[in-house]
Amino acid sequence: MRRLFHYPLCAFSRIVRFIISEKHLDCELIYQVPWEPFEELFEYNLLGSIPLLADISGIFIHGNSAIREYLEETYPEISLINGDFQQRAEARRIADWFAFTFYWDVYLPIVDEKIFKRFSKAVNKSPEPGKVRSAGTKLSTHMEYIAWLADRRNWLAGKEFSIADIYAASFISVLDYLGIITWNKYEIAKGWYAKVKSRPGFRGILGDNLPQVPPSAEYSNPDF
Amino acid sequence: MRRLFHYPLCAFSRIVRFIISEKHLDCELIYQVPWEPFEELFEYNLLGSIPLLADISGIFIHGNSAIREYLEETYPEISLINGDFQQRAEARRIADWFAFTFYWDVYLPIVDEKIFKRFSKAVNKSPEPGKVRSAGTKLSTHMEYIAWLADRRNWLAGKEFSIADIYAASFISVLDYLGIITWNKYEIAKGWYAKVKSRPGFRGILGDNLPQVPPSAEYSNPDF
Repeated sequence: MRRLFHYPLCAFSRIVRFIISEKHLDCELIYQVPWEPFEELFEYNLLGSIPLLADISGIFIHGNSAIREYLEETYPEISLINGDFQQRAEARRIADWFAFTFYWDVYLPIVDEKIFKRFSKAVNKSPEPGKVRSAGTKLSTHMEYIAWLADRRNWLAGKEFSIADIYAASFISVLDYLGIITWNKYEIAKGWYAKVKSRPGFRGILGDNLPQVPPSAEYSNPDF
Repeated sequence: MRRLFHYPLCAFSRIVRFIISEKHLDCELIYQVPWEPFEELFEYNLLGSIPLLADISGIFIHGNSAIREYLEETYPEISLINGDFQQRAEARRIADWFAFTFYWDVYLPIVDEKIFKRFSKAVNKSPEPGKVRSAGTKLSTHMEYIAWLADRRNWLAGKEFSIADIYAASFISVLDYLGIITWNKYEIAKGWYAKVKSRPGFRGILGDNLPQVPPSAEYSNPDF
């Protein structure tokens, strides 16, 4: 059986879950908090970090673009990096944008404050409300960028649903789970996210519910 | 003619130059400092950031994994993401490691201090020596990881030279240009880097010489 070591509120874990689900692949999800790496994970990938995919062939894949490209190469029947060269590059460009710029500008400061500082023993615990405020300001710019794309295209990278939507939705959905996103400020981005929410492949993610960190009121609601 | 908008001391630009050169592709390099984006770049990629590749087909590619995967898909004759699924995933995993963890742990704090603060008007100018010291400490850990890989494998990801070596060498070479790396502390990593330095595809990068920031004494020396 395929297995994914993941943490529900880790955007990179969500990306893999979303891809796997869109490709109709079975997968056993193994809950793993990111701040307490399993020794088992250390052995597999030296770094002990999640997500880690153990595929049915017995191989272990670790790393953001490594897992994504592996799944696309191995299971191309339902393609999530689709279209011509320009289209595929556009999907990857937007994926990079979220994995890199959005991650550091917005996602990490918020998740660090709301999750890591609360549960992890390893990180510095002093609250930094300024960091969350500054991340919130940057969030607006990114939501406007999503709106700019969604206003001109069917999905973020073009006509077809792709990893661009998967990356964006995986990051945004963690922040939405935490109640960070004021959707009525972002009508166009909200329209795009409503479409993502209605995809069967996203259902598992919308079903997440951690006892210690319950989701925001509208998190799983299709009419939010 | 193929064109690359790049900055010599930008590791992501170096990755693209190195890939292009290893694949024996012609390319005109267009010098572009990262802190003063061309309007031309804004038009092409909305973000105005480098590197930006304008390929001969007339398409523009932007973004770390987007350019890399585009070049591999379009010019597969000399493959830099090679071998079986596991091998390719390993090359991408290591590439991700440098583009993400090494970038934020080591590269950015140092380049920010040594380059951006000196030349860019946009960033906060106050020197933060503590940031560079902490990055230097983390550099040791990463160099040990390179040694761990280089000790067990012909190249970082396995038997063949790959994007793993290209990413690692592109980041390391910027720090080496700035004179940050005390090579006699890292004998095994040094052995690997000497092999990279001897590759014809790396010659262009070793020839970099910015008038305002001259390279360190041993930067281009094969016997360093």
